[in-house]
Amino acid sequence: MQRIRTLEVRAYVGERVRVMGWLQSLRQMGGINFLVLRDGWGTLQAVAENEAEIAPLVESAAGVESVIAIEGEAVEMPQAPGGVELHNLRIEVITPVTEVLPVSLNKRKIAANLTTLLDHAVVTNRNPERRAILRLGAGVMAGFRATLAARDFTEIQTPKIVVAATESGASTFKVDYFGRPAFLAQSPQFYKQIMVGVFERVFEVGPVFRAEPHDTTRHINEYVSLDAEFGFIENHFTVMALLREVIAGIIAHLRETYAAELELLRVVMPVVPEKISHIHFSDAQELILQRHGVDVRGEPDLSPQDERRLGEWAKEEFGSDFLFVTGYPMRKRPFYTYPDPERPEYSNSFDLIFRGTELVTGGQRLHRYADYLTALEKAHLPVEPFESYLEAFRYGMPPHGGFAIGTERLLMQLTGIPNVRLATTFPRDLNRLVP
Amino acid sequence: MQRIRTLEVRAYVGERVRVMGWLQSLRQMGGINFLVLRDGWGTLQAVAENEAEIAPLVESAAGVESVIAIEGEAVEMPQAPGGVELHNLRIEVITPVTEVLPVSLNKRKIAANLTTLLDHAVVTNRNPERRAILRLGAGVMAGFRATLAARDFTEIQTPKIVVAATESGASTFKVDYFGRPAFLAQSPQFYKQIMVGVFERVFEVGPVFRAEPHDTTRHINEYVSLDAEFGFIENHFTVMALLREVIAGIIAHLRETYAAELELLRVVMPVVPEKISHIHFSDAQELILQRHGVDVRGEPDLSPQDERRLGEWAKEEFGSDFLFVTGYPMRKRPFYTYPDPERPEYSNSFDLIFRGTELVTGGQRLHRYADYLTALEKAHLPVEPFESYLEAFRYGMPPHGGFAIGTERLLMQLTGIPNVRLATTFPRDLNRLVP
Repeated sequence: MQRIRTLEVRAYVGERVRVMGWLQSLRQMGGINFLVLRDGWGTLQAVAENEAEIAPLVESAAGVESVIAIEGEAVEMPQAPGGVELHNLRIEVITPVTEVLPVSLNKRKIAANLTTLLDHAVVTNRNPERRAILRLGAGVMAGFRATLAARDFTEIQTPKIVVAATESGASTFKVDYFGRPAFLAQSPQFYKQIMVGVFERVFEVGPVFRAEPHDTTRHINEYVSLDAEFGFIENHFTVMALLREVIAGIIAHLRETYAAELELLRVVMPVVPEKISHIHFSDAQELILQRHGVDVRGEPDLSPQDERRLGEWAKEEFGSDFLFVTGYPMRKRPFYTYPDPERPEYSNSFDLIFRGTELVTGGQRLHRYADYLTALEKAHLPVEPFESYLEAFRYGMPPHGGFAIGTERLLMQLTGIPNVRLATTFPRDLNRLVP
Repeated sequence: MQRIRTLEVRAYVGERVRVMGWLQSLRQMGGINFLVLRDGWGTLQAVAENEAEIAPLVESAAGVESVIAIEGEAVEMPQAPGGVELHNLRIEVITPVTEVLPVSLNKRKIAANLTTLLDHAVVTNRNPERRAILRLGAGVMAGFRATLAARDFTEIQTPKIVVAATESGASTFKVDYFGRPAFLAQSPQFYKQIMVGVFERVFEVGPVFRAEPHDTTRHINEYVSLDAEFGFIENHFTVMALLREVIAGIIAHLRETYAAELELLRVVMPVVPEKISHIHFSDAQELILQRHGVDVRGEPDLSPQDERRLGEWAKEEFGSDFLFVTGYPMRKRPFYTYPDPERPEYSNSFDLIFRGTELVTGGQRLHRYADYLTALEKAHLPVEPFESYLEAFRYGMPPHGGFAIGTERLLMQLTGIPNVRLATTFPRDLNRLVP
């Protein structure tokens, strides 16, 4: 008999069907055995009214997570999860599991501490809540790509083994490249700018690597960056307008395609306003002084606490989960940042704050060759490692800009999970390289 | 005036329009100046009948690759490339380029040797032929994802900094991970198998890293791997059937969406047969002996020459660009390979040969925990680095398998370019880390 998937069983009420998957749970109540079978898409209850039906499990001592096939009659049953269950079972054990699981997976939430959960991510990722979060990650990537492809952006893939640091040389992972020193890319920044010279509008979805020795709930050392970059912009406000469309596109895609996951996780979906409010960096610092009596003026960056405060303000003032902070000081931004023509100590850059945490960084970049030479000198950086990058500007680049969204950070803020490590399949942090 | 893109100009015949892009060429003929402007999607000819129109270029000494805007009247002109050109121009120079290009970009093909072309990939990627090839790369990724998403596969992103080699430990790049030794992933093999335990059907598009000191026309050291893996298969023939659908899906997607690029590159598109023919490894060796008088029986693998010969045979015998070779000897396949139950010295694995070159490797994997322990012992590999991976099998895995397609190799074989380095934006090879 052809196997069908659990989510298709409803269409076969009254017929015998065959499903395959993992034995998620098996419990006895009043002489009746209730099995829950999980496959790649959902779960299904099967009811064994006599011991003979579950004999194949008993004989091979097959416990939970055993891989099995069940043939049975699909019966409508309003009390059963999903409204349908299987009766009159024929069970076949494909791969028996006889060992006890390191962590119980049956419940919606896993009852284990973070370390145990991550140590055993190979199996804990099978838990329904974990699966839903990871599936949303796929949705975020798909929504990002679809929104940009619809705006004639070309997808690129650029090298991850590189010789020049895009952020700070201190936070690069070193690679031995056939005896030559190299780094892992901290971002596709240089390459996506170069590719604006080729395709004008580009995006990339790929891993980035940051050797930052931070041990916080919102940092991991390898993450999936959603990068976009495009030419012929007016200034950073053109970039912010595109970013708003991209965020709205991702949210719409999740709503359309991942309703079950959003419901399981009880996600409170944000409303993306037609226009996301913005505040200049210097005004943001003034606001924090007025509202909280804390003087952060003169600080070159916002702290996580500042971001939380601004997030609260945006919620109160505009009823919005989103806020753009624009014009970060030049001295804290990378050398390729475009200065504000009116106030050159500030930049044509922005962060997008989502629910009180920085989610996206972006802005306008320098596009004239001479400006790059000046900027490198000012930053006390040698020209040589950047020579190839600078060729793009030497041979003609338009005003351009872009942004980078951290996939895991977005998932964390969206679903309200307490730690970004839980927003990825197998996190890499200061202490974790396995699994 | 709102800027439009070059490919939209045809819809505005009789009106004045504004286009922006790069000055691809400027030549004078009989007192008339012909400009070609290139933007992210195509080119457009503009004709200046008097010197005043091109004065802005002359005044800023702006040569080819300068970024400019042109306003002009869109005129139907059958002789012009694309059938339309601009007259009565108003030119604005946005970023003047005064230096001479390292390589001329105007022609369809670049007249430079491979080294020069790759050294200056930052600008040579702007050439029309280079752009078309790279754009097809985007199409290959999109076609791969769309075909698998339609079959309910879930996209995953797995770590690239790892501790266990999936192929051979000798060909890994070493990374210093906060003082701990680590590698760059040679493939997502272990993680995609683990994720079959989570989602049943998964795929990943991402970089892989091979520290193989090969200097050939078909190897690069970092490439984009298109990986799929799925559970509840019968054997490797189930995997081959899916692969056929994926290849057909990619080809169909390119035909639908990249007609202009395929035409520019004069790509001879393959026909993907309803069923791709297959030959067992041992029969392939016999065939080579019969047809070519060369005895390769006993060799544990096929050489590039063997693959070429088999490709020729498939073309003659079946009129097909594709051929599956199945049943490679176990001793040349990685430890996780599933043996042929009938002839355990051979494996349930395959390669797909496309136009005489190996394009895809795949097969069925072991799924029982005990089999892994035996296989590791047989391969003289310690259990410890694989312990986390083995958890997947300890706690229940179905029969499963998958494959990996090299994006650049596919592009090379499809377009007939002579070197795989030309199938990627910025190649990494034994000697090349820049750009």
